[in-house]
This record gives sequence, C-alpha cells and structure tokens, in this order.
Amino acid sequence: MHPYQKLIKLSKQIAHLSSITYLLEWDQEIYMPAEGIAYRPEQIALLSGLVHQKKTSKAFAKSLNSLIDLDTKEIKDPHLTLLQIIALKRWRRDYLLAAKIPSSFVKKFATVTSNAAHVWQMAKKHNDFKLFLPHLQKVISLCRKKADIIGYQEHPYDALLDTYEPDAKTSDLINIFNQLKPPLKQLLKEISIKSPVENHFLYQLCPKHIQLEFAHLILEKMGFSLSSSRLDYSVHPFCTGLQPKDTRMTVAVNPENILGTISATLHEGGHGLYHIGLIAEHYGTPLAESLSLGIDESQSRFWETLIGQNRHFWQYFFPILQQNLPKQFGLITLDQFYRAINSIKPHFIRIEADEISYNLHILLRFEIEKQLIEGSLSVKDIPEAWNTRMRDYLGLDPKIDSQGCLQDIHWSLGMIGYFPTYALGNLYAAQFFSQFKKDQPNWGTQAEQGNLSPIRTWLQTHIHKFGRQYTQEELCQKITGSILSEKPFIDYLQKKYSTLYQLDS
Amino acid sequence: MHPYQKLIKLSKQIAHLSSITYLLEWDQEIYMPAEGIAYRPEQIALLSGLVHQKKTSKAFAKSLNSLIDLDTKEIKDPHLTLLQIIALKRWRRDYLLAAKIPSSFVKKFATVTSNAAHVWQMAKKHNDFKLFLPHLQKVISLCRKKADIIGYQEHPYDALLDTYEPDAKTSDLINIFNQLKPPLKQLLKEISIKSPVENHFLYQLCPKHIQLEFAHLILEKMGFSLSSSRLDYSVHPFCTGLQPKDTRMTVAVNPENILGTISATLHEGGHGLYHIGLIAEHYGTPLAESLSLGIDESQSRFWETLIGQNRHFWQYFFPILQQNLPKQFGLITLDQFYRAINSIKPHFIRIEADEISYNLHILLRFEIEKQLIEGSLSVKDIPEAWNTRMRDYLGLDPKIDSQGCLQDIHWSLGMIGYFPTYALGNLYAAQFFSQFKKDQPNWGTQAEQGNLSPIRTWLQTHIHKFGRQYTQEELCQKITGSILSEKPFIDYLQKKYSTLYQLDS
Repeated sequence: MHPYQKLIKLSKQIAHLSSITYLLEWDQEIYMPAEGIAYRPEQIALLSGLVHQKKTSKAFAKSLNSLIDLDTKEIKDPHLTLLQIIALKRWRRDYLLAAKIPSSFVKKFATVTSNAAHVWQMAKKHNDFKLFLPHLQKVISLCRKKADIIGYQEHPYDALLDTYEPDAKTSDLINIFNQLKPPLKQLLKEISIKSPVENHFLYQLCPKHIQLEFAHLILEKMGFSLSSSRLDYSVHPFCTGLQPKDTRMTVAVNPENILGTISATLHEGGHGLYHIGLIAEHYGTPLAESLSLGIDESQSRFWETLIGQNRHFWQYFFPILQQNLPKQFGLITLDQFYRAINSIKPHFIRIEADEISYNLHILLRFEIEKQLIEGSLSVKDIPEAWNTRMRDYLGLDPKIDSQGCLQDIHWSLGMIGYFPTYALGNLYAAQFFSQFKKDQPNWGTQAEQGNLSPIRTWLQTHIHKFGRQYTQEELCQKITGSILSEKPFIDYLQKKYSTLYQLDS
Repeated sequence: MHPYQKLIKLSKQIAHLSSITYLLEWDQEIYMPAEGIAYRPEQIALLSGLVHQKKTSKAFAKSLNSLIDLDTKEIKDPHLTLLQIIALKRWRRDYLLAAKIPSSFVKKFATVTSNAAHVWQMAKKHNDFKLFLPHLQKVISLCRKKADIIGYQEHPYDALLDTYEPDAKTSDLINIFNQLKPPLKQLLKEISIKSPVENHFLYQLCPKHIQLEFAHLILEKMGFSLSSSRLDYSVHPFCTGLQPKDTRMTVAVNPENILGTISATLHEGGHGLYHIGLIAEHYGTPLAESLSLGIDESQSRFWETLIGQNRHFWQYFFPILQQNLPKQFGLITLDQFYRAINSIKPHFIRIEADEISYNLHILLRFEIEKQLIEGSLSVKDIPEAWNTRMRDYLGLDPKIDSQGCLQDIHWSLGMIGYFPTYALGNLYAAQFFSQFKKDQPNWGTQAEQGNLSPIRTWLQTHIHKFGRQYTQEELCQKITGSILSEKPFIDYLQKKYSTLYQLDS
C-alpha cells in the first residue's frame, strides 16, 4: 500500500470513530430513552478518548512523517499531487495541535465542563449566577491553561480561537468588530424611533405535522433527498454530518411559531448542504472536511437570513404557507408577511435576535471572553460587564441573569473562542451573497418559481467542494476578489432596512 | 484501585464498545437513511475489531491473571467473595475463547459472511441455490476451521455450539431431540386428520397506529417504561439491550396481521425483560450478562407462546382488541379467537410455524448443520437433505428453495450452532412454566385482570437477576429440581392440543 493510502486508512478510522460519536450524541438528543443518560456520557468519553489516542498515536505520526516532515514541513515524496500536498499540510497542522494536548488534560476538561454544564442548567433555571460561578471559574482557568498548552504569539485568546477558526487572530477580530459596531448601533437607533411593525399574526397555534411538512418541503427544494438525509425533532436544533451519504438535521418545533421551525430548517439545511457538498471520494481526509466554523456558519446564515428572509424566496413559499394555514395567513399579504419576518426589535436573547442585533450579541460575548482569558475581567464580574454592554449596544437592561449572561450553554462547555465564529459567519455570508448576486443575477426569478438549485450549485461549486483545500482568507479572496470585510454586511443591512423602515440615508 | 475494580473498568469499556456497536446496528435497521449503508459496515467492523482487541489485550489478560490464574484457575486473592470468584471464572472462560481466535480470522470471517449474506438475499429472491452455493461452501469451510481453532473433545460441532450455548454438547442435543421428535410428529399426525380451525378472520387490514398502540399497551402491562425502553418498526423484529437503562425493541408491522405484531411484541418484550432484569450494579461484568442464547430464547418464547397463546392472557386483552377493532373482532367470541391463534398447520416457513411444528423446523436444521460440520453432507446436497426431512417431519414438499433451505439468513452469516438454541429455548420455557404454575397458582386469575406482574417478578427473581452466576444446568436444576428434559414441553403440548383438537389420548 502506498504510504499516502496508508495514511488515508488511519485517518478514515478516526473519521469513523468521530462519526460514531456524533451518532451517540444525535441519538441522545432524539431517540434515547431518558434514563439512558446514566451511561451515555461514559460511552461518549470513551470514544472521544479513542479518537484523541488515534489522532496522536505513534502509528499516525510515523505514517504522516513519512510523507511530510513534521518539523520542517518538507514533502518527502516528489510524486505527490498538489492536492495531496495540501492535505498533508492540514493533517500536519491537526496532528501538531492534538499532540500538544495531553490525554489527561482532555479528560479533566471533559469532566469539569460536564459538571459545569449540569450546574449551568440549574443556575439558568433558578436565575442563580452564584451557583454557576465556582464552576465557571474552573472552566475559565482551564481554558487559560489550554491556551498556554497550545501556545500563541500575540494573545492567549488566539490559541482558543484557533481550535474553531484556524489562523484567526484576536487583533483582526477587534479591528473588524470595531468597524462593525457603530453602523449597527446607528441602524438600531434610527429604527427605534419608527413605529413598530405588526408581526403578532406570526405567532399562532400551528399543528406540529404541518410545521414538519413545510420543513420537509423546504429541504426538498434545497436539494435534500430522504435517501441520504433526515429531519427529526430535538430540544435544540442541530445538524450532524455522519458520513458523506448520511446527513441528519433537527428542528425544535414550537407549536406557536412556525417561522421558528422554518428558520431552523433553513439554518440546519445550510450546514447540511455544506456537508453534502464535500467531495465523498475525499472522505477521511482534510479535503472533505468543513473549512472552519465561521465558513460553516456562513452557509447556515446564507440560507436562514439572506435567502430565507428574502422577498424572492417567499414569493414562492408564502402562497403555499397560506394554503396550508388559511386561518393564520389567508388575509395577510406577502408584503405584510415580509415586513413582519424582518421586523427589528432588540431582544435579551441571542437566538431570538434580528439580523441587525445579532452581531452585537456576539460582540458583547467576544469582548467579555477576551478579557476573561487575558485576565482583565474576573469571572464574578461577568454580570455587570454583560449588563453594561447590553445597555450600550442594544438599549436593554436585563433584570435577571437567565436573560443575560446565563442564557447560553457555550461557556459551561468550555467553548471559549466559539462565539466569534457566529459573527464571522454573518460577514462571510453577506460577502459571498454580494458576489453570488453578480454571478447569478437571475437567482431571484428562479427562486420565485421555487427553483433554489442556482443557489445550491453556486455554493457547492465555489465553497463546499473545496473542503479545507484553501484557507478562509484564500477562499474569500478567490470568490469575492478581496479579504473579509464588514462592508458587504453593513451595505446589505443598510439597503434592506432603509427601504423597509423608510430611513433617511 | 483494587485489581478487581481495575478489571471491571477494563471490562466496562468492552461493554460500552459493544453497546455502541448495537446502537449502530439498531440505527441501521430503523433510522439510517438508505445510502448510509455505504459506510456503516466499515464502522461496525472497526468497532468489532476494537472490541476483539480489548477482549484479548495484554492489559486485560494481565489484570485478569492477577486475580485468577489463567492456566490453573487458581484464585489469587483470598478476600474475594464467592460472587466475584464466579465472575472471574466466566471472564477467564470468555478470555480464553476470544484469545484463541486470531484477529485475521475474525476479519476474514466477517468479510466472507458479509458477502455471503448479500448474495443469499439475491439467491432467496431469485430462488437460486446455485448462486449461493460457492459462498455457503466458503462459510461452512470457515466454520469448520473455526471449530478447529476453538478445539473440541467429542465433536467439532461442540466448538461452534459453545459460542452460543456455553457447555452444550452435540451428543446431549441428539439425545434430547431424539426424544422430542416422535411425539411431535405423532401430535401433528393426529391433528392432521381433524377438521381445520377457522382463522381467516385474524388476517384483515388493520391500521399501523392501532397495531402499535396495542403493542405499547402490552409492553406497559409487561412492565416496560418509556423512560428506559422504546419500540420501533423494522423489517425484522429484534431486541437490543444497549445499557441497563436503555432497552430497544422493534416489531415488523404487517398491515394485515395484527397477531404477528402482538407475537413479535411479546417475543421481543420477553428478551427485553431479561435484559432489564439483570442487576444494573453488575453492569460490565459477566454477572449482568445473559446466560446463554437458549435461556434468552426461553424468556422470549415464555411470553410469546406460553403466556401470549394462553386463554388467561386473552381473557383480559381480547375485549380491548375487540374495542379497538370492532369490525374485525366484534362478532368473534373469545373461544373462537383462542382456537384461531392456536390452530396447527405445518408451514414451509419456520417463522410462521405453530408451537408443535416449530421445533421440527429446528431439528431439521440442526441435523443438517451437524452433518455439514462433521463432513458427512456436502453443501451442494443441502436442498435434497432439507426436502427429504420436510416430507418426513412436516409432511410438506417444498417446491422451491426459497421456501426451503434458502429461507433463513443464519447460515450466510456463519451462525452455525445457533439454531439449536431456539429449540432449547422452547424446552427451557416449558420446564420453567411448569414450575412457575406451581409457585404462582393464581397467575391466571391475575392475568385475567391484566396484572402480569406475578409473571415478570417470578422470571426476574428466578432467572434474570442471576445473569451468568449459574450455568444453564445449575439454573434449571435450582428452579425446577431437575436438568433440562423434553417432557414438560411435550406434556404441555399434549394437554393443550388434546383439548383444543379433541384428540384421543
């Protein structure tokens, strides 16, 4: 067997074991009987441990080192193709990162965060930050240790960021977010003095099966087939790509919010199409992996907001919605509906935020995380730091921490460095969308006839199929001719909401 | 950590990995999108390989050997309890068996049988034994090799049998089956001259959800809770115990056969209760494992036939069935119904066989398997051997092999030595039932009121909770005062069917 094939074989085993871990998690959220939880975390920990073992095994390192020198990056086989060489560089990167983290630390991190997540749930329920405090302190302390273990040049937060958004730098985030903040705040301010949009008709009792039928229709139009994907219910929506031919999405169905189900379907469907769009022949190599969380999120937000809150999309889907729910939507015009789903109103809760507020929620979290990691903010002072920013950015005054700094699960799980990828996703999505409209000027007319394939094809051709072949910067440059900027996002928002709210510009 | 605790830790890892393999199989049969099959077998093979590796690892052997000498069985720690010593003996047995089989053989066996199972499916569909022949030849040859690897004293078939029914001997099976055969044939003969029982009303179109509701009612009455078990659809019914608190059963719903669904529910529920009845605190040790396939099958057949084809059971459930399906059962009396579900009519297909014919189906398969393994029958001559016995035992003349020797998947999967456990299950069940009736004389009155807990409790107290603490022989002796015999089974059939068919006795 050629050494490259041997490496693929080892790498595929890691992919298989990871995929099985995802199935355990999927099952836990959807079909596992409640008491099964007694043993499931142990099973997941065992498999995750095996994955880490295999990723850092001597056999894997030796196999990789026979093709690319782990120290010098030198390629040892002159017959390798350019694509294979890129794959080797990615494998090397992953290996060096994983090898830095000792198994004992992985285990400790898992135990501490598992407990913290459990306590967080109670703390959120009882609005008791003090209950969560000692656990969060432990988590943050471990995250700082993790940053030291991984290492960094400029800022310890870089090390954490790197595990979710390879090569992203804290300083770059600060720059781009500083550009982003003023126009977002300005837009919110201008809209706040306009009369609010009527959108109560969106929230009416709607049978679960109608919500799910509509979700399936959207997925079908997006290009999903039931022979290689499925949709289920879970408390929190998610998408998990188990194998190239097995993509699983979930939505949380609120009986009084079909629009929530639709958003979630488009969002998870966006992640799902990315997964399906990777080249199956490369499965088990970095070439068939998602590039970064930011790029992955750009795909979900592309569908959820840029398509799913677009008039063209609803030109086709709104009449179907009316047909299925005549009592709720029969007397509503497309225009009323379109305005309602795009109404802007700052909200305490991130996951209910509109397109303008959303990134401000993220900026707030990023700023706090950064300070926690560099040590300029104590964990105990989070509520104050949170609430101060909420007033400044969104004009809201959280009365209770469960509507404030206790709302997200991420910190309890030690996912520090994750939130910024949500904002990056929005920015990438807008920049891609701007180029997409130039490349596919007829996309709207097609969407109005229910044909979403120009969208899917464009994303697959320009993004999905490359996996990790390019870096995010290279990909963005290749597609849009320039590196990531907040401008396309701001332009998009200003244009859309100036019209919707008749703002002076 | 005490060496015994250390051993449990290693053993639990094996249990976890096995449990995950079962989840992969469960998911494949029920929820996996069809194209997921492209990667699933690889995943299962990878995990099975890991299980075998861990079972035979130096670390496991060393840990075990520090408590029980692997060669001499000598117990090395005088402070161990009797129960711990028994567990160590079982662990040692399993280790020695697994260690005999090289990984290379496990892999080869898996590949050959996976292909054979695939070809079998086509051969069955097209009624083409010749297509299957070369694959079955390979399988049988591997099974003979497996017997040699495992080793045996009297008969090579003993070695294969041992992997499903520990300590069972071919010679004992021959003896007991020889006692069983004449009275079964005699009963069939006597019934064959009686007028057939009207049972066509059983087979009417019945909505899937009503079938499933009834299945759930039965499971609830058997003692299952949705918080630790679930029921799904699959093509072939099965039960898989993933963890002490997670038991999953499936039924295949034929829209024109609600009785099939009910039988399958009771059957799989019987397996499920065995799993639930094991002591959770012992999970990961042999003390919380099913004793043998024969004993496991005794539990499923106990519920399916001895309870589920009993008048007391239907005294409670038939009126509910009538209420749910008034068109189908409204004008039928309990007596008519009871006679219908117990009508005797030999059938080509094993899984549709009545209580009397069933074991003759098994005997036929056992006799052929034994000859194949000892080399007194060529694989190519199976159809003739099969059909000759069908005529002799059941008076049937299979016209096509798909109704004959191609009907079961087992041989394609290399499961030689498995079939006899079905017959043993019936015999154990009848012998246990005979004792159960003495211990719980009021069980029938209770069942008539829908109270099945005396049954469940008796089985749990006398069988389930012991796991592998006793051998089958010890358990049978302990419960019934004697070793396994065909008599209770024959007595049960003779008494029941003499009344039903008014036979002269």
